Amino acid sequence: MLIEIENCADSLREVQKILLLCHAHPDGDTLGSATALALALKAMGKEIAVLCDDEIAPKYDFMFTGVHRTVDFEPELIVAVDVADPELLGKNLNLKYGEKVDMCIDHHTSNRSFAQATWLDADSASVAEMVYELLRLLEAEITPQMASCLFTGVSTDTGCFRFSNTTSRSHRIAAELIDAGADSQMIIQNFFEIKSRSYAMLEKMAMDELQLYLGGRCAIMPVTRAMLGKSGASDSDTDRLANIPRRIEGVVVAVTLKEQPGGEFKASVRTHGDVDASAICERMGGGGHVGAAGCTLQMPLPACVARIIEEVEKEIG
Amino acid sequence: MLIEIENCADSLREVQKILLLCHAHPDGDTLGSATALALALKAMGKEIAVLCDDEIAPKYDFMFTGVHRTVDFEPELIVAVDVADPELLGKNLNLKYGEKVDMCIDHHTSNRSFAQATWLDADSASVAEMVYELLRLLEAEITPQMASCLFTGVSTDTGCFRFSNTTSRSHRIAAELIDAGADSQMIIQNFFEIKSRSYAMLEKMAMDELQLYLGGRCAIMPVTRAMLGKSGASDSDTDRLANIPRRIEGVVVAVTLKEQPGGEFKASVRTHGDVDASAICERMGGGGHVGAAGCTLQMPLPACVARIIEEVEKEIG
Repeated sequence: MLIEIENCADSLREVQKILLLCHAHPDGDTLGSATALALALKAMGKEIAVLCDDEIAPKYDFMFTGVHRTVDFEPELIVAVDVADPELLGKNLNLKYGEKVDMCIDHHTSNRSFAQATWLDADSASVAEMVYELLRLLEAEITPQMASCLFTGVSTDTGCFRFSNTTSRSHRIAAELIDAGADSQMIIQNFFEIKSRSYAMLEKMAMDELQLYLGGRCAIMPVTRAMLGKSGASDSDTDRLANIPRRIEGVVVAVTLKEQPGGEFKASVRTHGDVDASAICERMGGGGHVGAAGCTLQMPLPACVARIIEEVEKEIG
Repeated sequence: MLIEIENCADSLREVQKILLLCHAHPDGDTLGSATALALALKAMGKEIAVLCDDEIAPKYDFMFTGVHRTVDFEPELIVAVDVADPELLGKNLNLKYGEKVDMCIDHHTSNRSFAQATWLDADSASVAEMVYELLRLLEAEITPQMASCLFTGVSTDTGCFRFSNTTSRSHRIAAELIDAGADSQMIIQNFFEIKSRSYAMLEKMAMDELQLYLGGRCAIMPVTRAMLGKSGASDSDTDRLANIPRRIEGVVVAVTLKEQPGGEFKASVRTHGDVDASAICERMGGGGHVGAAGCTLQMPLPACVARIIEEVEKEIG
């Protein structure tokens, strides 16, 4: 059943013991929205816990001051926050609570309506914007900590106000959160700005190896184990690199080729416009979405590059 | 004489022929603020021209549709927009108008009060925010073109809402401008996301030359004429480079050192926390804001680097 913000507020007011669930591989929006809501409900005198199946990175620690992360009560209401599908709760939480979710607060068009009641706002860039309005409706005082939690959600889900999902509402709520004491600079520094020295070095080395093909329409950037070793960067640092080739003017197919510990290469393909990344990757045994896909190639680097150019050329002619 | 927004509005209402001056090495704020103001005044039936001493990059073309760029009238009022010092008008405009500026609209604490009347708001992240409020006071209709001009000013002077000068007012005005039809996605793509191939090459070369000093707290990145020549990048491309050194973990003072056609070096200094960039630059004959300032050094590159390290060390100890 789809519900409105007022129903959501009423349900929360009616009960005393509430369990909030985040999605696995947690991000700033699921964690920031759930913790801000938890802090507001706690201030209303309720018993609250926030659960997440995966480990939570230290940069999110500020959100959990005063928030219980274990359930020592029998929940009257189980609420999933920013969760489109029970499988996204992660294995453990899905097993335990996947079929018992009473309410879901979400902004994904792909939401599977798995909860008893779903408050869905697909026009909202982040769930944090929805929770901000919910807290206003609940007449909750928004503390600086809660404001920081929500600012993290708004900013991370909009790529710091750059993605095309960013609306005037995103900016207006960001303004309200700054006025409520959100530490926007700490958040921007930790989530968007600061690069570790090892990551900065890896980026430089990867950029040195980036080459353009097919008249500048295809960029291929190799990231080898040697580069990781020399820079001291970690495997997870390589995720951020995928943004480099796709930002070059004229590039419609951007490929990051990451050498794996076993020697094979994982290709991440990002496309602009209507070029089909998944069609390119499917012909090399992979798959994905139109704009972002991947595949794994068991061959030396020069052969990988040649093969990719061949398949990209078939797609963009 | 310092004036308020009301005086500024009154002065503009009283006259018919207005000349607006931008600073040399023009950026999104000086151009966006001047063109938005020009378009509003033109819609009020006034004769307007906008002048800038330097060539204006094609990405700003959208601002100038319907805006005169030559003066074929005798101005009754000469207004400098985002200009802290008549020297920043550039050689020609300074010679011709430097001592005749009637009004200056600016947000630099370093403003030299060179105009007859100065409306200064040092708390404003951009002059575009001031001009937005001025247009509201003038009851001007904000067209989508004007909204895009001002959104460019707000976004470029706040580093797309990342710099520490970004306030809740910046976000609120951004929201108003989006609602007024600003093409925020076009602006974000052109000014922040897409890199020309020549810019990407320049960035790579500059990163190769970046060095850390003072225990990693100071980063200095030289950008020479040779790099510009080899990459094919333009002078205006170098503005974006200033973000590279400031994002490295541990860096509190980030300096981009751009060699000028005459051989001198322009230093752009960006700081984190409460380190005062303008104090550093003032000791080298420049000025600016706490978080972002600049100066020009007439010496070879190694001497520039040594001098800057010396002055930075005085500030951060």
